[in-house]
Amino acid sequence: MRATLIYGAGDVRVEDVPDPKLHEPTDAVVRVLRSCICGSDLWPYGSMAKRDKGWQIGHEFLGIVEEVGSEVGNLTPGDVVVAPFVWADNTCDFCREGLHTSCRNGGGWGSKNVDGGQGEAVRVPQAQGTLVKVPAGEDGALLSSFLTLSDVFPTGHHCAATAGVNERTTVTVIGDGAVGLCAVLSAKRLGAERIILMGRHTDRTDLGRDFGATDVVAERGEEGVEKVRELTGGDGTHTVLECVGLRPAIETAFGVVRDGGVISRVGVPQYPDVPLDSKAFMKNITVTGGVAPARAYIEQLLPDVLDGKVEPGRVFDRTIGLDEVPDGYRAMADREALKVLIAP
Amino acid sequence: MRATLIYGAGDVRVEDVPDPKLHEPTDAVVRVLRSCICGSDLWPYGSMAKRDKGWQIGHEFLGIVEEVGSEVGNLTPGDVVVAPFVWADNTCDFCREGLHTSCRNGGGWGSKNVDGGQGEAVRVPQAQGTLVKVPAGEDGALLSSFLTLSDVFPTGHHCAATAGVNERTTVTVIGDGAVGLCAVLSAKRLGAERIILMGRHTDRTDLGRDFGATDVVAERGEEGVEKVRELTGGDGTHTVLECVGLRPAIETAFGVVRDGGVISRVGVPQYPDVPLDSKAFMKNITVTGGVAPARAYIEQLLPDVLDGKVEPGRVFDRTIGLDEVPDGYRAMADREALKVLIAP
Repeated sequence: MRATLIYGAGDVRVEDVPDPKLHEPTDAVVRVLRSCICGSDLWPYGSMAKRDKGWQIGHEFLGIVEEVGSEVGNLTPGDVVVAPFVWADNTCDFCREGLHTSCRNGGGWGSKNVDGGQGEAVRVPQAQGTLVKVPAGEDGALLSSFLTLSDVFPTGHHCAATAGVNERTTVTVIGDGAVGLCAVLSAKRLGAERIILMGRHTDRTDLGRDFGATDVVAERGEEGVEKVRELTGGDGTHTVLECVGLRPAIETAFGVVRDGGVISRVGVPQYPDVPLDSKAFMKNITVTGGVAPARAYIEQLLPDVLDGKVEPGRVFDRTIGLDEVPDGYRAMADREALKVLIAP
Repeated sequence: MRATLIYGAGDVRVEDVPDPKLHEPTDAVVRVLRSCICGSDLWPYGSMAKRDKGWQIGHEFLGIVEEVGSEVGNLTPGDVVVAPFVWADNTCDFCREGLHTSCRNGGGWGSKNVDGGQGEAVRVPQAQGTLVKVPAGEDGALLSSFLTLSDVFPTGHHCAATAGVNERTTVTVIGDGAVGLCAVLSAKRLGAERIILMGRHTDRTDLGRDFGATDVVAERGEEGVEKVRELTGGDGTHTVLECVGLRPAIETAFGVVRDGGVISRVGVPQYPDVPLDSKAFMKNITVTGGVAPARAYIEQLLPDVLDGKVEPGRVFDRTIGLDEVPDGYRAMADREALKVLIAP
């Protein structure tokens, strides 16, 4: 089959790889209907050291079950399924607590003998626990929104949920990427009435307004902090959803958070330390979030997608075929595209 | 009157200062029955730059109301009251949310025109909101436990409460100072069944066992982390109560926290950054806590003190008169005393 491999910074190739097969009785093989490129794929695309042997990349996909192992009791060939961005058994103590990203028998796509998501098919370990059936055919308007259940929507939801967003909390969302926009949508879904989106790409912040942002702050750094403070009577917001992962973003978060407030991070931090200094201590600031256990949230987010109450699939602004994936990476890295959908 | 002033590192003096008087109709004057020295007083005692003019120090006290301003409706002379370690109006939005340390009309003891707690009397601003009556006479066995409601007991409680300690969470407490021991007691009070106390002073960890610690780990650094991991099947504990405030303590906290767990800090951080790196992000670690809004907790903690269910006053292992305060500081700094009670 054809699949996407990364060899180093700026070097993504679509190549022939062995067809996936069942290795374990808990496996399934899924033919990919939709996949996409993640903001976090851009970190290795931006800085990975060159390798002679590439590795399969991509961790968001939705597809059709082709084959299941003897211990996979809940799936049959032909089922349309969404895969969360890590695989997990859904039965261990961490999974039962909703922390599938720490599953005792889980792992990541594209790691040893497991395919990446940006290809024609994937061997799925722990398929019974990992995959979630969605009521869809091979095509349909909802496929792109279903695909967001793989990562970007549950990640935005994790950010808002761990921050404790509700109808009484004001919210600042930092970052107008696909995760930031899904955080806006999730905050709105959880009842927030005041959502300030910090971002400077008008096409994206416009979508953010559609998703529920009540205010947009284009300024950055100290100026951006001042603007949010002005909008909140000097106090800042109860919750801050940091959806970038760079040091200036977390510094801005501390600038705009209200005393007693919560900063939640879902952008993989590209910095080693968080400035939780004595000033933040005196203000009782909490820092939470982390990698989103997407699997824990899919069932609760799915009904609103089905009902059309939310349309997270709107974050995709470009659709490409598998052979165009290298250019899809380039377009996202150049911020020409917000989020690229792959229809292999 | 006589009061304690600090002039610089190692330089604490008891001197004559003007008697406190009512300045505002919201003031009260309180004669101090009991005061004490706090671990956080040891930071300026350890490192404060020398000054020509000393400032009144001390922020934990319990006393008798001597005089009240015309707008103080809930207190009368003769009442025995405990003062939380910051004063607050108890009516603003932050106070109503239980965050009295961010009160819009509050402040600290020993700041401009407000006395410190380690003296014979104190002018108390916002007396109606700040002071809490306790059912005590001028003497009595419970006075020392009542005094802990000023800071050290609510601080331990804040640590455990913000960490989310309950009967289902395992707990590590880092630090066997008075706050660490009160964190043990608070975790036990909130239902925790497994409490690992990290500390190496046997007399203190023995008291920790009395307060509810089920295990004591004397090792520090990597060795201490290993020990806690061994005790918890390799996983670490759901909650970690960091009651020290030094960088090695917060590093240990990250070493012993379970995936998805919470680190709560109540030791004033003597470091600017917290190592919430990508590893902690992948483990979904939350960092919370901060300066404890003691006032918010006094009413809920008081009944258990009255009933004798908890005896936080046991953290005091030395009682001195006001003139001996300089030696009390020395004894605490030298770790000769755990916590020093002052009976002026």
